[in-house]
Amino acid sequence: MEIQIAVAKINQYDSPEGGDTLEVVERPNGGVSVVLADGQTSSREGKVVSTFVVRRVIGLLAEGVRDGAAARAASDSLFTERDGKDSAYLNILSADLQTATIVMSRNNPAPIFVAQRESVECLSSESQAIGLSRNIRPVISEIPLEIGTTVVLYTDGLANAGSRIGQSIDICTLLESLLEDQEPAAQEIADTILSEAVRLDNNRPNDDMSIVVLRVYPRESDQVRRMTVRLPVANNSER
Amino acid sequence: MEIQIAVAKINQYDSPEGGDTLEVVERPNGGVSVVLADGQTSSREGKVVSTFVVRRVIGLLAEGVRDGAAARAASDSLFTERDGKDSAYLNILSADLQTATIVMSRNNPAPIFVAQRESVECLSSESQAIGLSRNIRPVISEIPLEIGTTVVLYTDGLANAGSRIGQSIDICTLLESLLEDQEPAAQEIADTILSEAVRLDNNRPNDDMSIVVLRVYPRESDQVRRMTVRLPVANNSER
Repeated sequence: MEIQIAVAKINQYDSPEGGDTLEVVERPNGGVSVVLADGQTSSREGKVVSTFVVRRVIGLLAEGVRDGAAARAASDSLFTERDGKDSAYLNILSADLQTATIVMSRNNPAPIFVAQRESVECLSSESQAIGLSRNIRPVISEIPLEIGTTVVLYTDGLANAGSRIGQSIDICTLLESLLEDQEPAAQEIADTILSEAVRLDNNRPNDDMSIVVLRVYPRESDQVRRMTVRLPVANNSER
Repeated sequence: MEIQIAVAKINQYDSPEGGDTLEVVERPNGGVSVVLADGQTSSREGKVVSTFVVRRVIGLLAEGVRDGAAARAASDSLFTERDGKDSAYLNILSADLQTATIVMSRNNPAPIFVAQRESVECLSSESQAIGLSRNIRPVISEIPLEIGTTVVLYTDGLANAGSRIGQSIDICTLLESLLEDQEPAAQEIADTILSEAVRLDNNRPNDDMSIVVLRVYPRESDQVRRMTVRLPVANNSER
């Protein structure tokens, strides 16, 4: 089988630097993890906070620390570093080949959608942002790493798309309709949901928006790992 | 314009864990860096060494340290940690939006190919592996970040493909013929070169092979950053 992880990310309109930070790391015992943090402060400081959190989590995961322990450690580190004044939303999504599971760690009010065997489930139990107090824990869900599984998670900028014009994005319905197509690529799912969110904000995102889609495909594998990064460069850098 | 970075990576045949480690990191002042290390010891230890080196470099780049200084620091750290007994090949490839340049840092005998304005250049001046002594420096090349630029770098497993049967891969010619096509995607270039190398090793790679292709496209940008990771999972994990 093949695990595909796709990310799509856009910054707030007219903001050179966003508060969302996302990185992907290879797990030392097999598999891959995506770490997504959204700093809950002003834009410039938000980026500092989210970068701090992501680097901390990535470093721990690379040493073999479990996802839940890494999230707790990042929260304690942020609390210590910033004296409890700054917080961040944090998601860790892992395809763990050692346990043959997908592990989802949430410190984020935005839900995670999981599609397995024809049904789309919404993981939305209450969770706390990290960094505000001691002993903050993530909400963890673990499901088997099965062919056909799709996981979608995103930051609040996407969740709140359209709120200024009294509309909201129905990701569950959008995801269900996408999955009715024949084997949509993970990137296609991410791109479609993000572009719908951007449209609801009148093509000027009110906040950073990041979306991560993990999908497990049955296809015969050629044992080659692949990664593609596509980075748009603003026009003022074009000469 | 849009910067695309594509990676393709395959492990040595019948080796569960390779000695190559590759990661991509966002640059704090804009742009993206790819860090590729190949540990020059036995397979298990090679992975430990290459992971150590990549994590060290990534951490420094994330703090805003320049590429050359990060490579030197990683060499000193490896020398200290391993007492000068283990070495690694290291490449850092950066698209730096602050300076509007592509920076290539080599501590690797394998050359780097650069195609700009109709000609393919081969950067192959002598360079030293890191970790074996103090004061090891990278060979650094810096070129303008221009539309149409293509950079290809890879590990020695790919450079040595076919050596057991007295053949070798001519990456320069292969790249020239690929670039004659209309706007090949970076991933297509990486996949084609890797599959030719695997074929020369009789479909059983004698060593880990990793290839990185960076290419700058003119296309109109929608300001969305995208990343796709595709991870094949061996059959014994399929249940």
